[in-house]
Amino acid sequence: MRALTVRPGTAGSLEVTDVPEPSPADGELLVDGIALGICGTDKEISRGEYGDPPPGRERLVLGHESLGRVRSAPEGSGFSTGDLVVGVVRRPDPVPCGACAHGEPDMCRNGRYTERGITGLDGYGSPVWTVEPDYAVKLDPSLERTGMLMEPTSVVAKAWEQVERVGERAWFSPHRALITGAGPIGLLAALLAVQRGLETHVLDVVSDGPKPELVRALGATYHHDGLENAVKGAEPDVVIEATGVSSVVFGAIAHNARYGIVCLTGVSSGGRTIEVDGGALNREIVLENDVVIGSVNANRRHFAHAADALARADADWLERLVSRRVPLERAAEAFEAREDDVKVVVELGAG
Amino acid sequence: MRALTVRPGTAGSLEVTDVPEPSPADGELLVDGIALGICGTDKEISRGEYGDPPPGRERLVLGHESLGRVRSAPEGSGFSTGDLVVGVVRRPDPVPCGACAHGEPDMCRNGRYTERGITGLDGYGSPVWTVEPDYAVKLDPSLERTGMLMEPTSVVAKAWEQVERVGERAWFSPHRALITGAGPIGLLAALLAVQRGLETHVLDVVSDGPKPELVRALGATYHHDGLENAVKGAEPDVVIEATGVSSVVFGAIAHNARYGIVCLTGVSSGGRTIEVDGGALNREIVLENDVVIGSVNANRRHFAHAADALARADADWLERLVSRRVPLERAAEAFEAREDDVKVVVELGAG
Repeated sequence: MRALTVRPGTAGSLEVTDVPEPSPADGELLVDGIALGICGTDKEISRGEYGDPPPGRERLVLGHESLGRVRSAPEGSGFSTGDLVVGVVRRPDPVPCGACAHGEPDMCRNGRYTERGITGLDGYGSPVWTVEPDYAVKLDPSLERTGMLMEPTSVVAKAWEQVERVGERAWFSPHRALITGAGPIGLLAALLAVQRGLETHVLDVVSDGPKPELVRALGATYHHDGLENAVKGAEPDVVIEATGVSSVVFGAIAHNARYGIVCLTGVSSGGRTIEVDGGALNREIVLENDVVIGSVNANRRHFAHAADALARADADWLERLVSRRVPLERAAEAFEAREDDVKVVVELGAG
Repeated sequence: MRALTVRPGTAGSLEVTDVPEPSPADGELLVDGIALGICGTDKEISRGEYGDPPPGRERLVLGHESLGRVRSAPEGSGFSTGDLVVGVVRRPDPVPCGACAHGEPDMCRNGRYTERGITGLDGYGSPVWTVEPDYAVKLDPSLERTGMLMEPTSVVAKAWEQVERVGERAWFSPHRALITGAGPIGLLAALLAVQRGLETHVLDVVSDGPKPELVRALGATYHHDGLENAVKGAEPDVVIEATGVSSVVFGAIAHNARYGIVCLTGVSSGGRTIEVDGGALNREIVLENDVVIGSVNANRRHFAHAADALARADADWLERLVSRRVPLERAAEAFEAREDDVKVVVELGAG
């Protein structure tokens, strides 16, 4: 079959190539791929900055934002032919750390995990793929065109779970949320904020294109004139940070409410320094009992929360997050940055 | 009676002056003061940098690290004549915020709290004081000479509680703790770390004096050659930061273990900037699922935890934390910084 593959560590090696069709191991589901979402991590891998092929191989099947339809499922697996399904990304090492042994490889302590389409395991960028039922999540049939939003939604479902569990360390009754960054992660974080009944604000830098409208369609408020203006007189109880930009990160920590929680989800590069009033920042965090949480990846529980959140969302709004759909043979176009792109999707054939 | 008083906002106004002896309001305890611990906040107030007198008054009775013996207690208060007792510091506004209404004024959201000896309420720096039973905590009789360590212990009991509640947001099994700063807060944080069975490390800058010995007497490891050397090959799962020094704060955030938790307790001044690789710091927090917690003050629950922790501690070790004891009339000497001081105490007369 054809598949979207890359030679990790080699820039420009992204290609649609022939690979053997996978056959399911004992107990696994065989899945017809419908679509694949493309994100920043995929672009990093395609630039040779990140990723590892499976052991003994040179090329990796790319793709971790999956959506497929079950072609065959073992009896007792909990899945049936025709089910819409998404695969979890991370797997624990055969000798798991404590977190991995407790079903939380997203919190892995020893770093010896693998990730479908990223690190050591083929991804979901092919018309046929397999997945273990324990790492598969069934979707509502209404998500046939937008279910590839599940993986980024699982990331924000984890972020929100972390915020809530950390918030509940004492009395907690948040009212206002600020999301920094209106890419797919930011917009989906805003969706989950609105679903929680929070007064929701989203900050980005663009003043036109689809983002302001997508924010307003949620009933949230869009800001594009800087963080300090966005929070003036209305400091947020919770910030979900999705830009990774240092000035925004430090600004969000400095400008939240008492007992404020900032959840960082943006993966930034190092190597550029910024001047920070470290004393004032420390004082603010201490005197306000603030918390800063880092959150990455997601486990099966978060995928299940994401499936619930997407099933409750407005189907048209989800559809509008998908800016472009390109067929597998032209997958390279999904890696081009175009103005007004939110989420770009590769179509894999099944429907 | 004589009392340690200050005119908040006026540097050099610290004095032992005559004030009326308080009489207990309905339901309150009348307490004979034994001793008062002096801390950095007291010094800030004495320098005119902080604090507010009670409404309509110019001078404030200073002191929030209390220890006394109950002279009289109302029936049904839970206290009896002769009990060793310590007073909680913070009180909610008459119109409490949600946190204050839930018994957590340490987590106050509107900032309209008062604090004994700091903000709007007389402190415990007098031979007689009163306290509401709801804001009083009974101590083990063995703490007659060291019970004034309760307030700083309540601060670290809160810090440890916050760390544990935040840690338990997912699988949590910490092994190694690093305490930065070997002042009273740091040493008491180390005591509580050892009581939790953690491999405990303490970092400070001095290489002699009482601090290294006090750390070793706990069974903990003392470091004085910088943070990076202290954590080399042994990154801590939990850091309790008690210096407020920016380079230490950012170093602790950068050099902890995966799923690391840094609890900031040091109150620093602003106005000095530091160069930080904000992108690398953000990336580390996100990819490791790290958390930074600010923790200030303590509520009655934390004072109760502190009372348990001190009752379990080695009495001689606690006694060694008290470097000097000065009588009330010479209280000003307790505000002088002397080499090898850990905790300096003002004696108030009762025993």
